Amino acid sequence: MAKKLWGGRFGKKTNPMVEEFTKSIGYDYRLAGCDIIGSIAHVQILEKAAFVSSQEAQKLIGALKKIYGEIKNGKFKFDETSEDIHTNMQNAVEKEVGDLALKLHTARSRNDQVLFDLKLFCKFELQNVQYLCLALKKTLQKCAKDTKDVIIPGYTHLQPAHLVYLGDYLAGFGVMLGNDNERLENIKKNIKLIMGAGALAGTPIEAKLYSKKLEDILEEAEGITIEPPVNSLHTVSDRDFVIDILAALSIIGMHLSRLSEDLIIWSTKEFSFVELDDAFATGSSLMPHKKNPDVLELIRGYTSVLYGNLVSGLTMMKGLPLTYNRDMQLDKPPLFKSFEIVTKELNILAKLVETLKWNKDTIKKRLEKDESIYATDILYHLVKKGIHFKKAHDIVGRLVKYSIDTNKAIKDMKDKELKPFSEKLKQSDMLKLMKPSVSVKSRVSIKR
Amino acid sequence: MAKKLWGGRFGKKTNPMVEEFTKSIGYDYRLAGCDIIGSIAHVQILEKAAFVSSQEAQKLIGALKKIYGEIKNGKFKFDETSEDIHTNMQNAVEKEVGDLALKLHTARSRNDQVLFDLKLFCKFELQNVQYLCLALKKTLQKCAKDTKDVIIPGYTHLQPAHLVYLGDYLAGFGVMLGNDNERLENIKKNIKLIMGAGALAGTPIEAKLYSKKLEDILEEAEGITIEPPVNSLHTVSDRDFVIDILAALSIIGMHLSRLSEDLIIWSTKEFSFVELDDAFATGSSLMPHKKNPDVLELIRGYTSVLYGNLVSGLTMMKGLPLTYNRDMQLDKPPLFKSFEIVTKELNILAKLVETLKWNKDTIKKRLEKDESIYATDILYHLVKKGIHFKKAHDIVGRLVKYSIDTNKAIKDMKDKELKPFSEKLKQSDMLKLMKPSVSVKSRVSIKR
Amino acid sequence: MAKKLWGGRFGKKTNPMVEEFTKSIGYDYRLAGCDIIGSIAHVQILEKAAFVSSQEAQKLIGALKKIYGEIKNGKFKFDETSEDIHTNMQNAVEKEVGDLALKLHTARSRNDQVLFDLKLFCKFELQNVQYLCLALKKTLQKCAKDTKDVIIPGYTHLQPAHLVYLGDYLAGFGVMLGNDNERLENIKKNIKLIMGAGALAGTPIEAKLYSKKLEDILEEAEGITIEPPVNSLHTVSDRDFVIDILAALSIIGMHLSRLSEDLIIWSTKEFSFVELDDAFATGSSLMPHKKNPDVLELIRGYTSVLYGNLVSGLTMMKGLPLTYNRDMQLDKPPLFKSFEIVTKELNILAKLVETLKWNKDTIKKRLEKDESIYATDILYHLVKKGIHFKKAHDIVGRLVKYSIDTNKAIKDMKDKELKPFSEKLKQSDMLKLMKPSVSVKSRVSIKR
Amino acid sequence: MAKKLWGGRFGKKTNPMVEEFTKSIGYDYRLAGCDIIGSIAHVQILEKAAFVSSQEAQKLIGALKKIYGEIKNGKFKFDETSEDIHTNMQNAVEKEVGDLALKLHTARSRNDQVLFDLKLFCKFELQNVQYLCLALKKTLQKCAKDTKDVIIPGYTHLQPAHLVYLGDYLAGFGVMLGNDNERLENIKKNIKLIMGAGALAGTPIEAKLYSKKLEDILEEAEGITIEPPVNSLHTVSDRDFVIDILAALSIIGMHLSRLSEDLIIWSTKEFSFVELDDAFATGSSLMPHKKNPDVLELIRGYTSVLYGNLVSGLTMMKGLPLTYNRDMQLDKPPLFKSFEIVTKELNILAKLVETLKWNKDTIKKRLEKDESIYATDILYHLVKKGIHFKKAHDIVGRLVKYSIDTNKAIKDMKDKELKPFSEKLKQSDMLKLMKPSVSVKSRVSIKR
Repeated sequence: MAKKLWGGRFGKKTNPMVEEFTKSIGYDYRLAGCDIIGSIAHVQILEKAAFVSSQEAQKLIGALKKIYGEIKNGKFKFDETSEDIHTNMQNAVEKEVGDLALKLHTARSRNDQVLFDLKLFCKFELQNVQYLCLALKKTLQKCAKDTKDVIIPGYTHLQPAHLVYLGDYLAGFGVMLGNDNERLENIKKNIKLIMGAGALAGTPIEAKLYSKKLEDILEEAEGITIEPPVNSLHTVSDRDFVIDILAALSIIGMHLSRLSEDLIIWSTKEFSFVELDDAFATGSSLMPHKKNPDVLELIRGYTSVLYGNLVSGLTMMKGLPLTYNRDMQLDKPPLFKSFEIVTKELNILAKLVETLKWNKDTIKKRLEKDESIYATDILYHLVKKGIHFKKAHDIVGRLVKYSIDTNKAIKDMKDKELKPFSEKLKQSDMLKLMKPSVSVKSRVSIKR
Repeated sequence: MAKKLWGGRFGKKTNPMVEEFTKSIGYDYRLAGCDIIGSIAHVQILEKAAFVSSQEAQKLIGALKKIYGEIKNGKFKFDETSEDIHTNMQNAVEKEVGDLALKLHTARSRNDQVLFDLKLFCKFELQNVQYLCLALKKTLQKCAKDTKDVIIPGYTHLQPAHLVYLGDYLAGFGVMLGNDNERLENIKKNIKLIMGAGALAGTPIEAKLYSKKLEDILEEAEGITIEPPVNSLHTVSDRDFVIDILAALSIIGMHLSRLSEDLIIWSTKEFSFVELDDAFATGSSLMPHKKNPDVLELIRGYTSVLYGNLVSGLTMMKGLPLTYNRDMQLDKPPLFKSFEIVTKELNILAKLVETLKWNKDTIKKRLEKDESIYATDILYHLVKKGIHFKKAHDIVGRLVKYSIDTNKAIKDMKDKELKPFSEKLKQSDMLKLMKPSVSVKSRVSIKR
Repeated sequence: MAKKLWGGRFGKKTNPMVEEFTKSIGYDYRLAGCDIIGSIAHVQILEKAAFVSSQEAQKLIGALKKIYGEIKNGKFKFDETSEDIHTNMQNAVEKEVGDLALKLHTARSRNDQVLFDLKLFCKFELQNVQYLCLALKKTLQKCAKDTKDVIIPGYTHLQPAHLVYLGDYLAGFGVMLGNDNERLENIKKNIKLIMGAGALAGTPIEAKLYSKKLEDILEEAEGITIEPPVNSLHTVSDRDFVIDILAALSIIGMHLSRLSEDLIIWSTKEFSFVELDDAFATGSSLMPHKKNPDVLELIRGYTSVLYGNLVSGLTMMKGLPLTYNRDMQLDKPPLFKSFEIVTKELNILAKLVETLKWNKDTIKKRLEKDESIYATDILYHLVKKGIHFKKAHDIVGRLVKYSIDTNKAIKDMKDKELKPFSEKLKQSDMLKLMKPSVSVKSRVSIKR
Repeated sequence: MAKKLWGGRFGKKTNPMVEEFTKSIGYDYRLAGCDIIGSIAHVQILEKAAFVSSQEAQKLIGALKKIYGEIKNGKFKFDETSEDIHTNMQNAVEKEVGDLALKLHTARSRNDQVLFDLKLFCKFELQNVQYLCLALKKTLQKCAKDTKDVIIPGYTHLQPAHLVYLGDYLAGFGVMLGNDNERLENIKKNIKLIMGAGALAGTPIEAKLYSKKLEDILEEAEGITIEPPVNSLHTVSDRDFVIDILAALSIIGMHLSRLSEDLIIWSTKEFSFVELDDAFATGSSLMPHKKNPDVLELIRGYTSVLYGNLVSGLTMMKGLPLTYNRDMQLDKPPLFKSFEIVTKELNILAKLVETLKWNKDTIKKRLEKDESIYATDILYHLVKKGIHFKKAHDIVGRLVKYSIDTNKAIKDMKDKELKPFSEKLKQSDMLKLMKPSVSVKSRVSIKR
């Protein structure tokens, strides 16, 4: 086991099982970069507070920057025997500057430190997921444009309801992704990057020294500021931002699971509305003819992991006494995993959607075979002719039933055959009404 | 079974089991008021679109307002045989104005209608929960003020860490509730009250006619506007707002469960920091001496229902094809229940917190008995004397261990006894340092 | 508020908000019958332990039986102002026998009592759900028999894989329901009906007096016995049986959601494998042509409630100190709701499945159009001719691709055209192989 | 990317993102050993079915055994570019025996194979967790024996209720663990190790050839048999055993979280009933005096991961069409993680419990200070003297209140002072009653 950040009070060595059970380096190594950034800020604050001299500060920051560079170019070797990333980083600094590194922990607690690291990490990850949401939205909008002329049955209850533009269907998912972006933006904006909460009760350094612009240390952190706590007990006890993120990522996953479900159904032999590109489908080790939508199934399936992670985050926090408890260390694995899943999903879906082949002919033939989808158009026709809505509803309902029972197309019914249903039904009107383009254009309530 | 809004197409009557299984009047009756408000707006739009005459509109609105009045003063008798509240309301209007009521359903779908009702309902409920969050926040702040002088051990891992003000502890929950209020405000603001989405594909009424201020119909709806859909397929498929609310209410419940947990622990015989008022505690049917914190336990327990409801909402939506599916009807019971739970919790906690009796003497005595809580103060004292932080940490750790092992108070140790730990340790300094007020004041990093 | 079972130790009246917040009569009234049965047993035990005289016992049991009769024939009026059903029952007995009723609570705690009631209730409910599982299993098996000759595409990834018997598909769900029955049987068997745990630490009545056959009191309780606790602290702390049930009901719901999903997809216009009876489908208030599978969608949707309830049960118990805590009162609403949902689902599905109309012609035509489903049959043909499995896989894969690309049926390919893929491919063999009945019969590994 | 088990039908190479997104080797490598065992059985069956010659079988089995050996002694190098462990193993065999390896996949599907592997893996893991449950149970029972004389307050609502033996408290958790063992045994027993389901519809090999004893291949698999499917569609669609396991592990985690919660509370300074061994506690990087129960907190916290994993498993399966869908691949990560967590928890808790130091003196002093815990004893004393239970309850309730209000010990009250409460209260009786050993012995209803 690597050197620990505590120990003097203990009469025995920690049992190796305990070290193994409690350590987090296996996942929190992802915070290394953010930890260094926080340490640089901390040293600058220590300097202003005269806990370290200007020279000492320079030396420490030099070492921190060197390590940061190694992390960024993948050359840093994490020490898997460390308790956590903070200990690992502390020891790395010690290797560079010797005993001076010990001063780094002045007026600092890991409770405070881990929050800083995690929050900064989340801000960057959120930025990235937002970018990917908007990228997929753009792809969907482009597909909508490319299929401008395609009219499909719109489904409710998986039964055809009205004719709609395929483009509107695709753009509908665009709206979801746009909302997802805004949900994440809100969360990101509300994450306060606090320093100075200490273990729970603050530090001996004055509040005002904790106000800093982070971009002075890291260019990419433009607009992000460090601030002192308003209530330090709350600061170290709070994991709302983790839960907010897990919930928002669950909702994104849910949106994508719905797109996946539709594409899975639409690419069945029976629907055949769309075909996956061979490069985005998979086969079977047994059945040579299979072309399976595994990517879409996994996206649908991953929703379950995203939900499970949210449940984890919430359950972890239920009934925890204030302030920090070690349970809270377990906020990280679900958070990291959910970020990873959603990132991968958004990336791969953009490509998969882009390469979809829409079977326009099949869709067109499907429309021709199914007259019932014009039922509401006929209904409105009757309403315009003065019939009460609910009466017209009943007339058309019976007409559709008659058509099914007799296996006769409505378009083929002469006026005489239509008359028993209503005087207002004429074959000539029916022929005009029952066209895809007429149907979709009749609904004018959408703000385009 | 009451009259249904559909049927012509069907060759058989609906099986009574199906009616029983699918109907929602047992819970969606809560939407009655909002349904009427939506119907009034709808009639006004139908009038502008010339689907009903001015006279017809007046008649319909008259009937709707009459029913609204009855609902508000609790005199309306819901028809439990109705399929849902929309059918119930429709039939109620029919009783008032006869066949004219049939026109009410022109250019309207329940998919659209239920969303309008539910969103409006949520806006009002959110408003209420926000008010209660802020009310409890105020109560906590008042308690903080009233106990200004009380210093308690601040806990991490349920072990004493630093001394803190009880007021800061209480105010910490105030911060959570303030954040909760903001989270709800964000959600409320983002709920778009849309009309004109129809079943999924819009209606034959022009988009611009759907833009309305709701306050013209209902005074309490100040600032709320109705708007046409930008993407009607998305509109009827979307339940994000339900999930957002269920998540936010879960987080509130989690916050309250933590306050409850602390108060449960602090009101044990062993802690005795606080005592519940007799009016807010309960007894046992078997054990006459018991005074139990049942209210707090139930608040902690209800978190589980709030979480379960969120899981319900998310699971319901996973992998659902676009657009509307009947599964989505099940969004309402968890939503109603979660609103109800959080409302009750916030209400009762405000009273319970207000009537708490803080045992200041017990707390004071507790502080006197435990010196270790000053360990960090001694540590900083050494750091200020020039010792490296991590070395000072080790010195104090060993000092605390020595004090425990020898059962000797640090305050009683003479300089000679202190010296082996560090030359810089002097009894006179210790006596100055080891006072509650000195300790809490030494941490200056909080922005007050 | 009705009379409470405690109070002497309290200096103030309970606040009405507390009574409202803590009372459970609104849902635990369902336990009334079981509570009476438990009370009769308790009186018999009190009599043996000489806490009540034989005469007193007779009087008390007389009153209890009278109330039981009223509950069973629906004439008992529950008192909604009671704290819970136990208080309600206690007060009801007091109305019958006056002060003697006060003895009923001797050596008894509600902690013990509520567990007895709930466990007995669960035993009866489990029995009922088991019966319904087996009934639906039978219905499925009957449908399987009735459609013995029907061959359908078997799907993996929702893509056709092999031809299979519809009967095997239906029987597959029968297997699940059989397993569900066994899972419930196991749970039921493991629920121990304990008396004598008291509040947590036992009672002053000897263990052996608590051993009783319940069927002496209630005929329907055949085989159920009451026993004294082995560890009373465990007894009153334990809610495993509730979680076991919530999990088992979740799994049943999951099974039914899968059947529903398939039936929803198979009854789309595009699949048209099956049609719901008009009596088990629903319509639209806007679109007169709609025939929607709402029952199936709700069954799919209710899975979310069952899962949510399981999460509730688990979350409630997490980290609760021993022994009883009031949180545990919240075990009942999810349990009652989950029982209710699954009971309704099993009932309605049996009828819905029974009345399904299988479109045998449509299915047959579907098979004729799709040759690729014989790919594995061709593969095994090649393997039998001596070609390595994985090579044969590759050959058939390329053949299928060629058939799709050239839009040529494999059956129509002459030997010459087949030869480039493999010497072993002959048209005559293909024609023999590519028949539904030949295909399904070639797989002989199933133990029938 | 390593060689795949499919491809001929595809016109394009799989996109590398797809390979990355769909591959499972990163976690299913754990199944390597079970996969080899299954392959050996499969080869033996192929031989009997004459798909491979005796010589070929020998060669294949030789290669498989060699690889098995390498896996067991940790020398096998997994190929991270493989799609999954099955592909990896297939390719490993190919390296050993060349083209002959291609025959290995005859009459086999990964749908079938992955289930076999996973079920066998679960049987072994369950065995191990059962062993650890019983081991912890034994440790608890030993501690119970070692503290035979220790009487503690038994808590309900975290308020003292009755005096109980510490041993009974510890043994209570033993009962839970015993039940956990039985729950796992039931699940293990019900996992059917099936071969011959193929992709979903069986294989061309006769059912009877699939009946085998596994111990002929692997000694540790004593008593485990392979069997052919009764319903192959069900077999490949089923993941009930995964959910059963995730639920059972969640319940174990919940049990352990309760023990942890109590130990956390009992090791606070305020309770001080118990002290963690230094080797099983952790310190703080900031506060040198801290000794924190991190292990217990993490055990409490991990419950959230176990619950989340169960939610994952259930959500994954909701509404999935029959038969296999790729979503189901995601059953493994939560399953592996939950096994790992529970295994670690049981291991470390056994050591932690064993090394606990019970502060018998502190507990004893605590009992002496709190008379109210005898309230029920006084109550029963009155009942025995002929007072109705509920009246006696009221008398003692008022007596306790009087004692608190006047700050007077009941033991110190003379008969005169007791009389107003009841004639039957005598100081001499009180002094006899109010002793820990008298109190615990008075409750005789527990079957010991």
